[in-house]
Amino acid sequence: MSLLYALDLVGTAAFAASGALAGIRRKMDLFGVMVLGLVTAIGGGTLRDLLLGDNPPFCFKNETYLYLAVAVSLLTFALYRHMNSMRQSLLFFDAIGLGTFVVIGTEKALYFKLGLLGAVIMGVITATAGGITRDVLANQIPLILRKEIYASACLTGSILLVLLVHAGTDRSLALLIAAATVIAVRLLAIRFNWALPRAQD
Amino acid sequence: MSLLYALDLVGTAAFAASGALAGIRRKMDLFGVMVLGLVTAIGGGTLRDLLLGDNPPFCFKNETYLYLAVAVSLLTFALYRHMNSMRQSLLFFDAIGLGTFVVIGTEKALYFKLGLLGAVIMGVITATAGGITRDVLANQIPLILRKEIYASACLTGSILLVLLVHAGTDRSLALLIAAATVIAVRLLAIRFNWALPRAQD
Amino acid sequence: MSLLYALDLVGTAAFAASGALAGIRRKMDLFGVMVLGLVTAIGGGTLRDLLLGDNPPFCFKNETYLYLAVAVSLLTFALYRHMNSMRQSLLFFDAIGLGTFVVIGTEKALYFKLGLLGAVIMGVITATAGGITRDVLANQIPLILRKEIYASACLTGSILLVLLVHAGTDRSLALLIAAATVIAVRLLAIRFNWALPRAQD
Repeated sequence: MSLLYALDLVGTAAFAASGALAGIRRKMDLFGVMVLGLVTAIGGGTLRDLLLGDNPPFCFKNETYLYLAVAVSLLTFALYRHMNSMRQSLLFFDAIGLGTFVVIGTEKALYFKLGLLGAVIMGVITATAGGITRDVLANQIPLILRKEIYASACLTGSILLVLLVHAGTDRSLALLIAAATVIAVRLLAIRFNWALPRAQD
Repeated sequence: MSLLYALDLVGTAAFAASGALAGIRRKMDLFGVMVLGLVTAIGGGTLRDLLLGDNPPFCFKNETYLYLAVAVSLLTFALYRHMNSMRQSLLFFDAIGLGTFVVIGTEKALYFKLGLLGAVIMGVITATAGGITRDVLANQIPLILRKEIYASACLTGSILLVLLVHAGTDRSLALLIAAATVIAVRLLAIRFNWALPRAQD
Repeated sequence: MSLLYALDLVGTAAFAASGALAGIRRKMDLFGVMVLGLVTAIGGGTLRDLLLGDNPPFCFKNETYLYLAVAVSLLTFALYRHMNSMRQSLLFFDAIGLGTFVVIGTEKALYFKLGLLGAVIMGVITATAGGITRDVLANQIPLILRKEIYASACLTGSILLVLLVHAGTDRSLALLIAAATVIAVRLLAIRFNWALPRAQD
């Protein structure tokens, strides 16, 4: 099992937990919590594959993603009261997922011969569309559209990967650098409370 | 015309009426009511076909579904004041749609060579994604994620069908048993007010 | 460059501005404003292409649409305070986009051998799904489902185009008549404050 695949599964689990927690907070029942966990974990990659025309999407070709997301959602539902102490760890694993999803999505789009901007957008979609759908289903304006350097971390990593690939950098090295950049920017943004400007400011 | 197709059309009409009623309640205009009727009736099967890569989706191959959904939405709009007495019948027809959509979706996914969990998810998506989209467009947390044994009825039927097919049961019999189970669970849930647990309980 | 393509780009820019403005009004950050601008500008055509199975969608084949939508969103973000005086012009350009998107979507659906109602629906989706997604992301009931003759202008033009094509009218002439009808109905609706009936009225 490659490192990238291992990180991909870590990210899937972290995203599923974040979705399940959002469902619990909105007083959803067990089914709703599972749906939010699943959608958050696989929504981004699924939308990317729909747009690329790669059917069925990745998680229906390798059901490991589905089983993992369902299992983590059920665990989160069962252990909800004991998860407060894990808040910091979850943010850390979530950042790993963010970085991994961005580089996987961007690289896949380049492989499917998309242009530079298209590939960047696919990377960002892979990392963020699941969380956006989670917030829409929870009837909230998606957090990512309002504050925090979350999407910007993705954007940075995605653009960096496109540039590195364009410059002929070794594939594995380029993926590693880009993913590490996303994770670092995201963790620094949490630590120092960075935020993007708004038009009103 | 097969029994399954007849039930499919009954379900399509019932789902269109439920979508149109939601649009009327949210004070939408005639166009909005038609959109909600259409989306509720065909949204689930359309998302399933997008995910399976079966383009264009079923309702664009056989436009009967589109004409039926539009006609029922217009009728609901016109006869809105007289429909209160139909509330019980609508719940009954809605349950028929639920059971039919679940087995059609699950079987189609198996035919497209999806795995067991993938097929179950496709069955649930076919039966519920239309109603979820209806509630998102009406700016509400989808009812199905919050309460009632609605999705669970689907889940039960979908898992049952996958198991029956796996066990080599005759196709028509398996479809009939699974659909009847969904309908029975759903009607019993309405009658006895069953609900799934929430994490706070 | 054909006239239709030029109008298509004008409409894309106008839709991007409307999306970016909605994001600014909902206090989104720079990233959120870009997402809403992009989604509003390309969401309708992208959903149409997903449904038709034409992958990847138009804007990933010709990235001009993506660059234009991103650039207009950034400009709108930067010049927000100075755009009040442009309100009337924006409504005008928005109407041009509406008419252009409707005829492009309807014609493409006919080319993909969809039936009459399917083609009409694809035209309406092309012109309205972007704005609907914009409003869902901004956590509001889509404006188009509630009031104004906006969707009806699309519906009129789409049905007219299908009838003209069916009657054997010259392609360019049919497109021109249908697009002009949408634009005229939309501008008259703004001028005279037309609205569709609701069930409660």
